[in-house]
Amino acid sequence: MAKIAVIGSGAVGCYYGGLLARAGHDVRFLMRRDLAAVRASGLDIRSPEGDFRLEHVSAFASSEEIGPADWVICSLKSTAFGAAPELIAPCIGPDTRILALMNGLGVEEQIAGWFGPERVFGGMAFVCINRGQPGVVHHLRYGRVTIGHHLDDAAQVEELRAMLAGARFDVVAAPALRAARWEKLCWNVPFNGLSVAGGGIGTELICRDEELRPLAERVMREVVAVANADLAAAGKASRLDPGGIVAQLFALTDTMGDYRTSMALDYVAGRPLEVEAIHGNVARRARELGVAAPAVDALYALVRTADLRRRGLVPAISEAEAAALSD
Amino acid sequence: MAKIAVIGSGAVGCYYGGLLARAGHDVRFLMRRDLAAVRASGLDIRSPEGDFRLEHVSAFASSEEIGPADWVICSLKSTAFGAAPELIAPCIGPDTRILALMNGLGVEEQIAGWFGPERVFGGMAFVCINRGQPGVVHHLRYGRVTIGHHLDDAAQVEELRAMLAGARFDVVAAPALRAARWEKLCWNVPFNGLSVAGGGIGTELICRDEELRPLAERVMREVVAVANADLAAAGKASRLDPGGIVAQLFALTDTMGDYRTSMALDYVAGRPLEVEAIHGNVARRARELGVAAPAVDALYALVRTADLRRRGLVPAISEAEAAALSD
Repeated sequence: MAKIAVIGSGAVGCYYGGLLARAGHDVRFLMRRDLAAVRASGLDIRSPEGDFRLEHVSAFASSEEIGPADWVICSLKSTAFGAAPELIAPCIGPDTRILALMNGLGVEEQIAGWFGPERVFGGMAFVCINRGQPGVVHHLRYGRVTIGHHLDDAAQVEELRAMLAGARFDVVAAPALRAARWEKLCWNVPFNGLSVAGGGIGTELICRDEELRPLAERVMREVVAVANADLAAAGKASRLDPGGIVAQLFALTDTMGDYRTSMALDYVAGRPLEVEAIHGNVARRARELGVAAPAVDALYALVRTADLRRRGLVPAISEAEAAALSD
Repeated sequence: MAKIAVIGSGAVGCYYGGLLARAGHDVRFLMRRDLAAVRASGLDIRSPEGDFRLEHVSAFASSEEIGPADWVICSLKSTAFGAAPELIAPCIGPDTRILALMNGLGVEEQIAGWFGPERVFGGMAFVCINRGQPGVVHHLRYGRVTIGHHLDDAAQVEELRAMLAGARFDVVAAPALRAARWEKLCWNVPFNGLSVAGGGIGTELICRDEELRPLAERVMREVVAVANADLAAAGKASRLDPGGIVAQLFALTDTMGDYRTSMALDYVAGRPLEVEAIHGNVARRARELGVAAPAVDALYALVRTADLRRRGLVPAISEAEAAALSD
């Protein structure tokens, strides 16, 4: 059984950390919002795969209290990633390994820069999950985690895979982490982006609308083009197949129901968006590589503006002003 | 002095019709919202160029009451243009001429199809204007009207120009109407579009933001490319110069203050948007001509969705739903 520090105990951290604790690992959660509730009465996981409850949860307000661990799972939102080095460092010993279970491009590179590349893994959770009242996590649907090692060390990936599978994760080992991360972005860039740029809409409208659907496909194909240029530049052999990706991800999304992306929920609720880690980093990578990605650029500009406007950081037209004027 | 029917007495129709009435023309307004107020107490024009008041205004509830006129000024919003043939027809006599003082692409073509091409003129008002309480029009800034004839008949354009100049219009005759209409679209597509797709923002943010400004320029250059393909396909000699247009329109907009486009005001107030006449027609023309316009396409899809969502015509994520869920 491993000692596992969960840095960032949002829905993803609580759910997957909860699975590992249920399996008997010594899981220690760095918590903020839910700290008091979890200390008082544990963690409640509601899931179609079976509810479970952890009565005694090791929850802490600082990483120093957790100390060096065998594994660090970094499940911060990318908007909080600036604090990651300080939050992770106290949990690092000589043999600690780090799994970045986060959205966005460039996460592993940054962690590798801070703590060395050999110990860094990436994970992408395809899961619909959220927190309700403090101490309660609602797992709604899906749950697969795709993992890889930053240097694509197959033996190390297998070790992690076995640990997660032992805790009943639906886990898949990706032979090439960077390609797997790009595959996730092929969904996140169009669907998260359009769900916000459309003003807070679900995936069903994007899939059904005669203008939004081709736009989503165009954005996806641009992301594939950036991905393949990026993989080539990084000396990786893997490539994404545009037609295959488009067919697969639209087939998945067409049968998803009217899914609300986390970015759309954050937008409508006025929370900060992971737009820089997702759209910003893809748009910037495209520019570095000289790959034209006009629809990605447009989406980035608009989601960025939507985020700033929604949070009152740029001026906007008020309803009162607009109601007073008619042409 | 001419008998002039103003079909569509919004801010534009009331203001320019008011100038013509002040100059002594027999102007007859087809009115809806302001009919009772104007009949009771006339039309009040407030303008930095001098307020004026028309005590006795010929205002009507139907075009039949107006009857055949020398000139029809069609100043309907493009969202109401479907009713135009029925509204205009009663005012058409053998020699009636029609000025379409409207936004959008394809307006003159439609009117020409209904009433013949020789009598059709187009006008583009560069004006900041709105209606306040019934019977009151606020003219805020600008005012230039660029006019042209559907078949580019220079003698006829000069006749209209002289009439409008005689009523103290700031009027410019365009040698090529279609090119002039495209020039206006070079501003409307990016700035109206981004002011809505950005969620209801002014022009200052678009000009200042490091991502929105290059996006606006990209959209503008795409519109120029569509314009030139369209002019070539229509056998017109005029072409738009991309660099010149971009420099001129950004210089204009940079010094405009934080202008609220009519489309942004309509969006925030929940009124229907002229998105089909402006973005839809440009995007469709680009596709017909085989001109790639990815940023225009993206903007069209998003403004269209914003319009439908704002008016409750497509499902959206509610604030209550988003507030209950956090990840």
